[in-house]
Amino acid sequence: MEKDIDESRRSFIATSGKALAGVAIASSIIGGTAEDASAYSYNGGYKYQKLDPGEVGEITYKNYFKRWCASSVIAGIVEPLRRQVGGKWKDFPIDAMRWAHGGMAGWGCLCGTLIGAGTVVGLITNDTDIAEEMANDLCFYYSYTELPSYQPRKIIKTKLEDMTLAGTPVCHISVGRWMAAADKAFFSDARAERCARLAANVAIETTHMLNKWKDGRYKPAHELQFNLKAHGITSQNNCMDCHGQNVPSAEIYKTLDK
Amino acid sequence: MEKDIDESRRSFIATSGKALAGVAIASSIIGGTAEDASAYSYNGGYKYQKLDPGEVGEITYKNYFKRWCASSVIAGIVEPLRRQVGGKWKDFPIDAMRWAHGGMAGWGCLCGTLIGAGTVVGLITNDTDIAEEMANDLCFYYSYTELPSYQPRKIIKTKLEDMTLAGTPVCHISVGRWMAAADKAFFSDARAERCARLAANVAIETTHMLNKWKDGRYKPAHELQFNLKAHGITSQNNCMDCHGQNVPSAEIYKTLDK
Repeated sequence: MEKDIDESRRSFIATSGKALAGVAIASSIIGGTAEDASAYSYNGGYKYQKLDPGEVGEITYKNYFKRWCASSVIAGIVEPLRRQVGGKWKDFPIDAMRWAHGGMAGWGCLCGTLIGAGTVVGLITNDTDIAEEMANDLCFYYSYTELPSYQPRKIIKTKLEDMTLAGTPVCHISVGRWMAAADKAFFSDARAERCARLAANVAIETTHMLNKWKDGRYKPAHELQFNLKAHGITSQNNCMDCHGQNVPSAEIYKTLDK
Repeated sequence: MEKDIDESRRSFIATSGKALAGVAIASSIIGGTAEDASAYSYNGGYKYQKLDPGEVGEITYKNYFKRWCASSVIAGIVEPLRRQVGGKWKDFPIDAMRWAHGGMAGWGCLCGTLIGAGTVVGLITNDTDIAEEMANDLCFYYSYTELPSYQPRKIIKTKLEDMTLAGTPVCHISVGRWMAAADKAFFSDARAERCARLAANVAIETTHMLNKWKDGRYKPAHELQFNLKAHGITSQNNCMDCHGQNVPSAEIYKTLDK
């Protein structure tokens, strides 16, 4: 059965190597029909006050070595909010998201730093569109910034020099690219140091966004649902990382039954 | 710069096509050194009572068309808990995780149903190891079960016949495989129906785990960190989905500097 599916998929994706960008699909909705899928506001009751990005980064970095990627980003933002704001933040369970480390329990999917960042953004912004815009901008930041650039005040594990462009929010590719560039194994102090600094970078970037939002100055840097509009499927821009030379054309999706 | 990294990565991963399984790496830790990374308990204050999986599935299914994958799984479990347990569940912001839809704002990484399921598991279990064991088991369930098998009491969008094996928790591959098998576009009622039923399946499976756990009968079905032990990097078992014939051998990681 699985073999049949594999063959079906292979013929499906092997049709064309055409460029991917710029193919517009006339829709901006995801869930179903347009009336289903509109954005809406909610009230989570988690208040925000502007935070010091440097402090957020340092807390995140220090927390990584026990709490790992997702929960260390949450700790970096939630711990100062407990002091500055209190309220519901006081008993928010920072460790409840630790399972997200390593792209979910080590499965290497979505980097846990982004799951942690998205969690706090969602708790704070109270608007599905704003939360999604920040999530989208964070994916762009993560994918197209040489990381980690964060310099801790006091190094916990080891000095670090290498920075890499992930090209994707996918943990496996992101950490694999860094491991190759740095010649370091996953079970090394250097790799742990890298992910700790990366978590600090993501927490700092998230804090910049939230601070701007608090001032009424946050504007999304990137178009929402670019991936769905350009490719007709949930996707990224690093198609050749997995499809190699056989990148499917977005045109193929137009042949599918609407 | 990006090109250099690409070339480095290509030579890194192109070395061998050897089988992947069974290569043991003598470590069971992730974050850094062993003393850093041990599991621990916490108290989130979110109480659990056993739920009716059928009701959870139906709520999840109905919620999908407005809340999408992550938040609909959360709604399926949290809404009955608000009635049965109350307490902190009453004002838990179900919509705070909607950004996770489509593998994070449509980037196609980790399926949002699993981010939603992991969130409630983390809130409830109060133990990093148990939450991670359930997250791991959910990834296995999602990857190696023909889905969606859920049959709604009343169909909202359209009848559905096709089920597919994702082989991965990655949204882009999972939904792409289903779209190819069903000959349906992403922006179709059938695809929305598929993801709604898939969300119900994941919510039901999560409820089964949590009910067993409440009875003291939950035992993980799969080894934790199998991916790290076998491959020396955060990873899955569907290596050829992305690496094609050039699947790197786990041996290569042993040549990296520890």
